[in-house]
Amino acid sequence: MLNLLDKTMLAKVADMHEIPQGAFNIRKNGQGVERRTTDNINILTKTDKPGIDIIVKPYTKGESVHIPVILTEESLNDLVYNSFEIGAYSDVVVVAGCGIHNDGCSKSQHDGIHTFNVRKGAKMRYVEKHYGEGAGTGGRVLNPKTILDVEEGATVELELVQIKGVDSTKRDTEVRLAQNAKVIITERLLTDKEQSAESKIIVELNGEGSSAQIISRSVAQDHSKQDFYFDLIGRSASRGHVQCDAIIMHDAKVYSTPRIAAEHSEAQLVHEAAIGRIESEQLIKLMSLGLSEKEAEDTILKGFLK
Amino acid sequence: MLNLLDKTMLAKVADMHEIPQGAFNIRKNGQGVERRTTDNINILTKTDKPGIDIIVKPYTKGESVHIPVILTEESLNDLVYNSFEIGAYSDVVVVAGCGIHNDGCSKSQHDGIHTFNVRKGAKMRYVEKHYGEGAGTGGRVLNPKTILDVEEGATVELELVQIKGVDSTKRDTEVRLAQNAKVIITERLLTDKEQSAESKIIVELNGEGSSAQIISRSVAQDHSKQDFYFDLIGRSASRGHVQCDAIIMHDAKVYSTPRIAAEHSEAQLVHEAAIGRIESEQLIKLMSLGLSEKEAEDTILKGFLK
Repeated sequence: MLNLLDKTMLAKVADMHEIPQGAFNIRKNGQGVERRTTDNINILTKTDKPGIDIIVKPYTKGESVHIPVILTEESLNDLVYNSFEIGAYSDVVVVAGCGIHNDGCSKSQHDGIHTFNVRKGAKMRYVEKHYGEGAGTGGRVLNPKTILDVEEGATVELELVQIKGVDSTKRDTEVRLAQNAKVIITERLLTDKEQSAESKIIVELNGEGSSAQIISRSVAQDHSKQDFYFDLIGRSASRGHVQCDAIIMHDAKVYSTPRIAAEHSEAQLVHEAAIGRIESEQLIKLMSLGLSEKEAEDTILKGFLK
Repeated sequence: MLNLLDKTMLAKVADMHEIPQGAFNIRKNGQGVERRTTDNINILTKTDKPGIDIIVKPYTKGESVHIPVILTEESLNDLVYNSFEIGAYSDVVVVAGCGIHNDGCSKSQHDGIHTFNVRKGAKMRYVEKHYGEGAGTGGRVLNPKTILDVEEGATVELELVQIKGVDSTKRDTEVRLAQNAKVIITERLLTDKEQSAESKIIVELNGEGSSAQIISRSVAQDHSKQDFYFDLIGRSASRGHVQCDAIIMHDAKVYSTPRIAAEHSEAQLVHEAAIGRIESEQLIKLMSLGLSEKEAEDTILKGFLK
């Protein structure tokens, strides 16, 4: 059922070079095409709306679930609701991601709405890669919404990556942290041509001892435009740190609007943002080693987004 | 015409312990009460609306102009428009500031709208202190609006200080910088009780080589609330840095919402914000030297806001 193009796309967005270990669900052009469940991880098709329920049993350790989505046709408008129940004291990796290959001239779009209940003491790493390609002029649009409720003592790591070729994206990420819950978010974003990207990340430090670290790195090239919104709300004795760095090139525009909101005297919140060009010393150094300007630039950008 | 209370208020807001050197204009309870002009600095009463025009001749060096405002009655609602023409290649100090002594039980308010044309190559230091006192329950409200057009190669230093006793403030500061123009803004703010303070600072880096540095420090105590908005817009090869630190105590709330907007690939913009409590190590150190907790706190806060 999966052809060579499908496999290439899966490798890009979910590092799936073969059928993965553990549970998975592959969605292609708006329909589920392959699924595997395990004793500890169940996947159920929703009956009321498009999407799946992913249920990880308590105490499940060292397992993973891959739920990539690929779109290989034009004019698709795929909306999907996925719900995750990450059982107490489990330790799992969730790999989502969406690739759009659009050779046509009309838009293809995927909107994924992911809600997570991360139960007491659980650990979850969530990786989401977005990628677009194709010879057509049709837009490749990805609007993910990710909502996480993180219970007492649970830890969540989010890796959100937009590799290349996505014409328009609106990312929404909301995290609510209970007592001693922790979130680490790393975001990597590259835009070029006429692309636009908007990313909103809201983290509520509700519980005592909760903590959040957000690291966002982006590169804006050509005529592309990036908008970042961060909102870090300290409602208890908690710690939060946002760091947002952008490299701006050509005629690109980058807007960074963070907010830190301390509503408790023991909330410690820090925000750092920097927008600038590639450092010329770095360029000169690499060029003195024999690289062309273009190669030197690419090397620096690759390192920056790694 | 100035009584002892007036003199105390003038000392607080304009460091005026006696009649100052140079030009000055003292406004009391909505009316001008004393004025002095010099050969180089003229002060004219506006004919179309309340307020004055302050005109500094080109090449004026080492002179100052004091324009303090004091309100010593309740129920005042004083709105004033002051326009400044800071001549090319001059080097002057402008001391504004407003003190409200309100012993009554109804509100007294002063809204000062200050517009500056800072001409080519000029240097201006602008000091604005706000202070409230009085036994009454009547609110002491100060809403300053400060708009600066800074021409080529000119430098402006703004010191904006709200010392104490201001129940409600909305501060608006807008700065537009031409080629090689420079602004340094330092803001110091303390709120306590049920006070609220809002400060918006917008800096447009329009000209090539322009630069901006904004340093905001605040202390929020009791049930007070502070809202900060910064907007740093890089429209050319320019540099901007915003640093915003707040100490939060008791049941206070602090919101910091900066935006950095890079609309040019050679704009280098940095923002740093931190909200947190007084560092306990610092407290312990001072207390080990024999200070009470209160004294140690006061010492730290005084140093922080200096």
